[in-house]
Amino acid sequence: MYTLKICQEIIEKHLRGIKLPENPALLYDPIRYVIGSEAKRIRPSLALLACNLFTDLIDGSINPALAIELFHNFTLLHDDIMDNSDLRRGHPSVHKKWNINIAILSGDAMLIKAYEYISKCPGSVLSEVLAVFNKTALEVCEGQQFDMDFESNTEVTVKDYLKMIELKTSVLIAASLKIGAICGGAGERDSDLLYQFGRNLGIAFQLQDDLLDVYADPVVFGKSMGGDIIANKKTYLLISSLILAKGEILKSLNDWIRRKEFNRDEKIKVFIDIYNNLNIKELTESRIKALFGEAQLSLDKVSVSKEKKRELREFASQLMIREK
Amino acid sequence: MYTLKICQEIIEKHLRGIKLPENPALLYDPIRYVIGSEAKRIRPSLALLACNLFTDLIDGSINPALAIELFHNFTLLHDDIMDNSDLRRGHPSVHKKWNINIAILSGDAMLIKAYEYISKCPGSVLSEVLAVFNKTALEVCEGQQFDMDFESNTEVTVKDYLKMIELKTSVLIAASLKIGAICGGAGERDSDLLYQFGRNLGIAFQLQDDLLDVYADPVVFGKSMGGDIIANKKTYLLISSLILAKGEILKSLNDWIRRKEFNRDEKIKVFIDIYNNLNIKELTESRIKALFGEAQLSLDKVSVSKEKKRELREFASQLMIREK
Repeated sequence: MYTLKICQEIIEKHLRGIKLPENPALLYDPIRYVIGSEAKRIRPSLALLACNLFTDLIDGSINPALAIELFHNFTLLHDDIMDNSDLRRGHPSVHKKWNINIAILSGDAMLIKAYEYISKCPGSVLSEVLAVFNKTALEVCEGQQFDMDFESNTEVTVKDYLKMIELKTSVLIAASLKIGAICGGAGERDSDLLYQFGRNLGIAFQLQDDLLDVYADPVVFGKSMGGDIIANKKTYLLISSLILAKGEILKSLNDWIRRKEFNRDEKIKVFIDIYNNLNIKELTESRIKALFGEAQLSLDKVSVSKEKKRELREFASQLMIREK
Repeated sequence: MYTLKICQEIIEKHLRGIKLPENPALLYDPIRYVIGSEAKRIRPSLALLACNLFTDLIDGSINPALAIELFHNFTLLHDDIMDNSDLRRGHPSVHKKWNINIAILSGDAMLIKAYEYISKCPGSVLSEVLAVFNKTALEVCEGQQFDMDFESNTEVTVKDYLKMIELKTSVLIAASLKIGAICGGAGERDSDLLYQFGRNLGIAFQLQDDLLDVYADPVVFGKSMGGDIIANKKTYLLISSLILAKGEILKSLNDWIRRKEFNRDEKIKVFIDIYNNLNIKELTESRIKALFGEAQLSLDKVSVSKEKKRELREFASQLMIREK
C-alpha cells in the first residue's frame, strides 16, 4: 500500500521528468518555472491513493494524475492574471516575471499539455476519464467566473457561495479521486463515492481556509491574518454575518465595507468582534464538521477493506486539524 | 458526395445547435457571441470533405470538426487579446466588448469545449484523433509565440518565417483534413497525404495573404491595403526584401522601418517601389506556385478516385485564385 508521502514523491519525480522543447523559450520557460516550483501535489497524490484502493499497480493512474496537476497549475497561472496576484508560492507569478501575453499563452499550452497526459491513460478507460476531466475543467472555469461575479454582487447567498467554492475548489479534488479510482478499475458506485468524499472534503477545506484567515494562530499559520477582511472578500464568514446581523451591527458592518480609508488593525478588530457576537466561528465550525462527517460516510461505503482506506482517512483528518 | 457548400451548412447548423448553460452568463455569453458570428467554417468543412473521401457516412467526423472550429475560435479570441486587436470579423473582439479577464476565461472554456467535442468522436479512433489534436494545438501555441517573438527580432530568416506560419496557420488546416480522414476510416498513408496537402496549402494561403496586403485590388479585397507595411510586419515580402536589398535600397528600407512619424501613403509607395525593384511579387508568386503544386501532388496520391477528390481540388484552386 502506498502512503501519501510516497505518492507525492512519485508525482514530483514524474513532473520533473516532463520533457518540454527548448523553443519557443518564452512559451515553455514559464511552464518549466511553474512545474518546478515547490508544491504539495495533493490532487495527483489523491488520484494515486484512490487508484491504489483497487489495485497494487498504480502506473495507469500516473499520467492522468500528472494531467490533473498540470491543469491545476494552469488554473493558478490564469487566475493570477485575472486576480492581479503578483505572488504565487512565494515567487513572482508568471505575468509578473514575464508579462500578461506570455502568461495567457503559456497557460493555454499547459492546459493542452494536461490533455496530452490525459490521453496517455489506458485505452480501456480513456473515454470515461476524459468525460470526467472535461466536465470538471469546465466547472472550474464556472467557479472562477462566479467568484469574479461575486466581487461586484452585493446579494450573494450562502447557497451561492457554497456552489461557487464547490466549482472552483472541490470538484477538482473530487475528480482527482474519481479518475484515480477509474484507472484502478473501480466500479461506478465506488468511484462516485470517492467523488462525494472529495467534494465534501474540498468544500470543508475552503470553509476552513476562510476561518483560518481570521482565527488562525499567526505564528503557526505563517501569513498575515485578516487579508479577506481587509479586501471585503465574500467569505462564508462575511456572507453569514451579513445575513445574521441586524440593527446597529448590520449598519456598522456595511459601513466598514464601504469605507475606502481605514486603519487596518481597527477594521480587523471590528469584524472579529462582529463575528464573535454572531457566533460565526461556531457556525462555520459546525458546517465544516457536518461536511467532514458526510465525507467520511462516503469513504466508509467504498467497497474495499478499512485497512486500505487508512491513508485517505488519515489525509482527511490531517486536513481538518491543519492550522495552516 | 458532399460539396464544400453543403459541409459549411452542416457545420453552421451544428454550431448553432450547441447548447451552453445560461450561467455564469459572463463565461458563456462570449462563447455564444463568438460561435454566432459569421465565418466561413473552412477547417471543419475540410474535415467533413476529407472524411467523405473514404465513406458516405460523415456523421462520425462532425463532432471533431466542431471541436476544430471551437479551437480555431479560441485561438482567435486569445490572440486578439495578445495582439490588442479591437475588431474581429467586423465586430468588437471579446476583450473589447467585455474585458480581458472575461476574454481569458471564456477562451479557456472554449478550449475545454473543443476537447469535449473531440471526446465525442467514435471510440475506435478517439485515441488517434486526440493525439493529432493535442500535437496540433500545441504547435499553434508555438506559432503564436514565434510570431510574437518576431516582432522584436531583427534577424528573422525566410526559413524562420515559413516555420512560424506553418505552425500558426497551416498545421490546423492540415490536421482538420487528417482528423476527417481518420474518422472516415482512411489508412495512415492517405491521412498523412491529406495532412501534407493541407500543410502546403496553408502555407501558400498565408503567403498569398502577405501578397494581397500589398498587391490586391482594394475594391475586390475589401479592406485597406498596406497595413502590414505600415506596421513593419515581418511578412514574406519584407523578410525577402531585407535579405535581397543592398546598398541604398537596404538603407532606405531600414530607414523607413525605423521612422516613428511618416506619411502613410508615402511609406506604402516607397515599400512597393522597393518590392518591385527586387521582384518580390514574382518571388512570392513562384513560392506560392511551388507550394500549391506540392499540395496538388499529395492530393493526387490519395488512394481514392479522382472524381471523389473533385471538391477538395476545386477548393484548393479557389483559394489560390482568390482576390480577397
